[in-house]
This record gives sequence, C-alpha cells and structure tokens, in this order.
Amino acid sequence: MIEGHGDDLHRYAGRIRHNFSSNILSGVDHAGLRSHLIEALGRIGHYPPPAPHTLCSGIARKWGVSPDNIAVTNGVCDCIYRIAQLNAGRRSDIVAPTFREYQDACRRYAHEIRFISSPDEVADDAECLWVCSPDNPTGRVWDADSLLALAAADRGRLIVIDQAYSDYTSLRGVTPEECVEAANIILLKSLTKRYSVPGLRVGYAVASCGVADSLRGLGIPWEVNTVTLAGAEYLLAHDGDYVIPAASLHAEIERMAEKFRRIGIHCFPTDCNFMLCRLPKGRARDLKEWLALRHGLLIRDASNFEGLSEEYFRVAAQRPDANDELTDRIKEWIYMQ
Amino acid sequence: MIEGHGDDLHRYAGRIRHNFSSNILSGVDHAGLRSHLIEALGRIGHYPPPAPHTLCSGIARKWGVSPDNIAVTNGVCDCIYRIAQLNAGRRSDIVAPTFREYQDACRRYAHEIRFISSPDEVADDAECLWVCSPDNPTGRVWDADSLLALAAADRGRLIVIDQAYSDYTSLRGVTPEECVEAANIILLKSLTKRYSVPGLRVGYAVASCGVADSLRGLGIPWEVNTVTLAGAEYLLAHDGDYVIPAASLHAEIERMAEKFRRIGIHCFPTDCNFMLCRLPKGRARDLKEWLALRHGLLIRDASNFEGLSEEYFRVAAQRPDANDELTDRIKEWIYMQ
Repeated sequence: MIEGHGDDLHRYAGRIRHNFSSNILSGVDHAGLRSHLIEALGRIGHYPPPAPHTLCSGIARKWGVSPDNIAVTNGVCDCIYRIAQLNAGRRSDIVAPTFREYQDACRRYAHEIRFISSPDEVADDAECLWVCSPDNPTGRVWDADSLLALAAADRGRLIVIDQAYSDYTSLRGVTPEECVEAANIILLKSLTKRYSVPGLRVGYAVASCGVADSLRGLGIPWEVNTVTLAGAEYLLAHDGDYVIPAASLHAEIERMAEKFRRIGIHCFPTDCNFMLCRLPKGRARDLKEWLALRHGLLIRDASNFEGLSEEYFRVAAQRPDANDELTDRIKEWIYMQ
Repeated sequence: MIEGHGDDLHRYAGRIRHNFSSNILSGVDHAGLRSHLIEALGRIGHYPPPAPHTLCSGIARKWGVSPDNIAVTNGVCDCIYRIAQLNAGRRSDIVAPTFREYQDACRRYAHEIRFISSPDEVADDAECLWVCSPDNPTGRVWDADSLLALAAADRGRLIVIDQAYSDYTSLRGVTPEECVEAANIILLKSLTKRYSVPGLRVGYAVASCGVADSLRGLGIPWEVNTVTLAGAEYLLAHDGDYVIPAASLHAEIERMAEKFRRIGIHCFPTDCNFMLCRLPKGRARDLKEWLALRHGLLIRDASNFEGLSEEYFRVAAQRPDANDELTDRIKEWIYMQ
C-alpha cells in the first residue's frame, strides 16, 4: 500500500501543529546528526560502498551477534517484501489488525494468507507467521517467551517479528541473540523509529546466517545512499543520546485513554506510546479531516487496517497540553455528530 | 553483483588523487545542491511522501511525456531488477560486453540468457533485449533509428535501453517521446550520471503507461528518502547549471587513445568520455593495484565484464594533465612486465 499510511503530513503542507498520526517520538534534537550529515554531503559526488558492510558490523556489535546475522534494507518495508519474496507461494498467518505491508507483500508474492487475532491461533500448516510486537496499530506487546516457545515447537515455520516499536515499550521483546539461536525467527528493527528519523529510511533484519544471507542476496549494489549510510553510522555511535521515555509516554497515553473513554471513545489496551481507538459514532476519516483542516491536529485514520472499520483511529501521545487540546477537539466533534 | 563495479574509491580511503574508474564527470560544483540539501535535512524527522509523485511529474515535464510514463527507482539498478522480475523466466538477449547488472538481474529471475554482440543479432524468440547505449564499458552508441526499427519489427518483444550515459555523447539516443510511442521500449535514465551525484541514488524508467505502472507497482512506500527526493527535485529545476562537455571529453579520450596505442594498448572505439582498453601483456587487476597504491590513480579492472578477460580495463577522461600522468605510469608498468 503506497497511500493510506499515517504521518501523511505532506498532504497538509504547513497546516499541522501537532502530529498524533506518527508513532515516533517527536521533538527530538537532531542537531548533532545534521552536522554530521552536512559533512557527508561533501561525498555525494562519489559512490557509496556497494554494500553497507560497516553498518552491518556496527549493528551486529550493538546486539552481540555476527555481521552475518544482519541484513540492512531501505527501511523495514524493503525487508518485509524481501521476506515475502523468499517465501513466495507459502501459507502465511498474519496476526491482525496490524501493519498493512505484511499482507501487501504476501499478496505480491502469492502467499496464501490467513488473518488470526493472536500468535497462539497459528494453524499447524502455516509456513510463515507474521507478528508485529509491539503491534501497530494497537501498541500491544506479544509475550516474548510465548513467541520463542512457538518457534521452538516447529522449527520448520518461519516467524517474522517486527520490533520496529520495541523501544517504545518497557516490556521485553525477543532479543537478537535469542533470534539467532532459534534460527527460524526474523527480527525486524527500524532506525526510523529508534532514532526518530523517518526521512532517512534504514531498517534491518536479524536472522540466522542463512536467512540473512538470502535477504542480503535480494539487494542491489549501492542500495543505501551516502547520506543515509553516514546518518545510520552516526546514530549507532550516538545511541545513548537518543532516549525514548517509554514509561512516561505510556503513562501519558493511559491518561489520554481515560479522558477519551469519558467522551465515549473505546480505547484498546496498549503497552506503548500509541493506541487504537473506536469512535462511538461518525467516521474517523471525517474526524481526521476536520481536525487537520480546522485545528492543525493530525490523527491516523485506522479504517484501512485489516478487520477494522471506519470508526477506528490511532493516536500517539504528544505533550500533555497538545493531548488535552486533541481530547477537547474530538469531544467537540463528537457532540456535533 | 555487489562488489566488482568501478569507482571503488571507498577501498582506497584517501589514497586516490585521480579517479579514472568512474565514467561520471568529476569536479562538478555541488555548492547549490548542498545548500538545498542542508535545508532538507531539517525534514529528516518526518516521513517523505510515500511515493515520489512530484518528482515523477518534474521528470515527465522535462521530457514532454505524462507522469504515468515515469517510474522513479533507487538508482537505475533498482529499475533493472524490477524489469527482470516483471519478465521472470523469459528469454533475454543481452548485447555484451555490458553493464553486469542486466545478467545478474536476469539470473535472479530465471531468465534464459544469451549474449550477443550487436542488437541486430537478437534471436527471433528473444522476449527481451537488453541494450546499453552508450554502452558501458565500451562507450559505444547503438544507432537509435535501428533500435526503433527493431522495436517496430516485433511489438511483442520488450527492448530495454539503458541510457544512463546519454549525456556523455553527442550522438542521438531514442527519445522519451519515441519510447512512449513505441510502447515496447523501456528507457533507463540516471540522475547519478546526468548530474554527477552517485551518492544520491536516483534513476528512472520511461515506458508505456502500463509498463511504468507495473514498475511502480514493485515499489514500496517511502522508497525515496527525504534527502534524495529534495536533491532530485533541485537538480531537475537547475538542469541548465549542469553542463556536460561531451564533445571535448570525447576529444580528450581520443587523444588518450592515441597515446595508449603508441604504448601497445588496444583501445576500442568509443562515442563517449570513457573507453575500453586491452593490455598487450599482464593483468588489469595488477595494473590497477599498482596505480592505486603507488600513484593514487584509480582505473576500472574490466575483466569481470561478460566475454572480457584479465587484460581489459576501462578509463574515463579526466583533466589532460591527469590523463598524461596516467599514460606515463601505465607505460612504466608495461615496461616492467
């Protein structure tokens, strides 16, 4: 799916004051990164290395695995499509509602798709299981030990665990070491989310050497450009400077949920900084347009997630005053319906 | 092929004074582009548009075709792999020696590959024909009218014409308008080569609406990052500032060829700023290492092009004094063999 994702700020050029539609930490100070990138701009007249070996090594060091266990891609999306391609025609169970690209990638490569509502419901004959944890759009974390047990129960089944949002929860996820040991798990990780740099586009997979090698094998020369590569290397080296206050963001979204519930909105349980909501009446699409055009507030219309309908939307916690403003505006809109 | 291309400057960090291994115009002033990109760096905290519509429109305007005829990709390489994927399992004739990625892409997607030495030799049953014009590594331009006639003779056969180097020759190529009219031609174009920005990674295809749509259909959301997108839009808007002196570069490579021939090197005919050469004795690989490590001069070992052997190398014309220095050093090396 090309259009229809969140953070479609570009559609409202200059009008948005508070962006609740992206789950990524906002207001991050990128001054150091920018200085580093300005220096890297001096190298755009030269080819980047054909494969991002040094970046792979840096990521491997961070997680205590081998560079052979890492495949760097053009954002996590690129990785999702490569996994689907490597498993073309297989049976895929997808835990839904979830990020739309798993099903789109599986459709592109003729998977036989089934939607399930929990990893436990995976069918015996499912060759691939796709789990987003923390899940998008719900923010729910699936229990890491249960996922590892599921992987151990059938080593012939591939389990893809998208941990793009793992830094936005205090709950534990499957670790890269556990993933490598299991051999039938692919962990997806996103620099976009970890460091709040959606403009850069870097993601990676952690997997067994064989699987990571196959994922790299679907790459093309020079696929990570000079600026992105320089940015990613800087971010890894300055990991400690990027702190995501997961616990306080979660507390803030719980506070929002409380207020939302009082105005009749159903809020689903979340372990993260964002949550899935259902309007008591009216369409999320209309609410979104009204909030954006009238008040400069952007939410995510969640009606296009599998299994959800037009009353669903998703919001990520911002500063308390912005969150309160959003609550007040939504209340106003609901009364007008 | 990930490793083994030219311009492997990254392998000789800081040692190279003159880079003959890249066919791209060097010494280009990117000050305006860099200023524009520094501004764009302020947006790396936001997602780029999920698809590069405005860039497609800009490219379409430049060529007088519809945006529906354009597919923007992560460099021309990305486009080559998409074309191979869309035609998986077909019979492909590749005019060789040529850019290595056509055959690698065709192998990845199980094409039945034949190498031919001229487009005229294409077999009746070939479903795809891959032509690089100007060719890499020879710099030879295949006659545009003959290619159009070939396309007209069998509309069921797809002809891929990689024109990445079209701005480096004075000879005419197939125009985007002719390509769209023919319907069975895909033209590949490279911003990398046109504007000397290999660090950015942007290429595109011009094709019939149906084919361009299929090529775009293999894309993923946000595949062109914020910086690349900003750079590409700037370059299109400042096209006139980027002048490639094709005729004088060609005259200079002819002057080099004259001097090379005098020291026993066979130089193949070229219509561009670069040429393919064959050593009278010794291996290009050894010459390359000696030139790089001893003298800071980088050439392209061309032994890994289909049909070529270890005596082949490729050079692109640089400033006359640098070219003369290269000639002197190669002469010295040949005498030592």
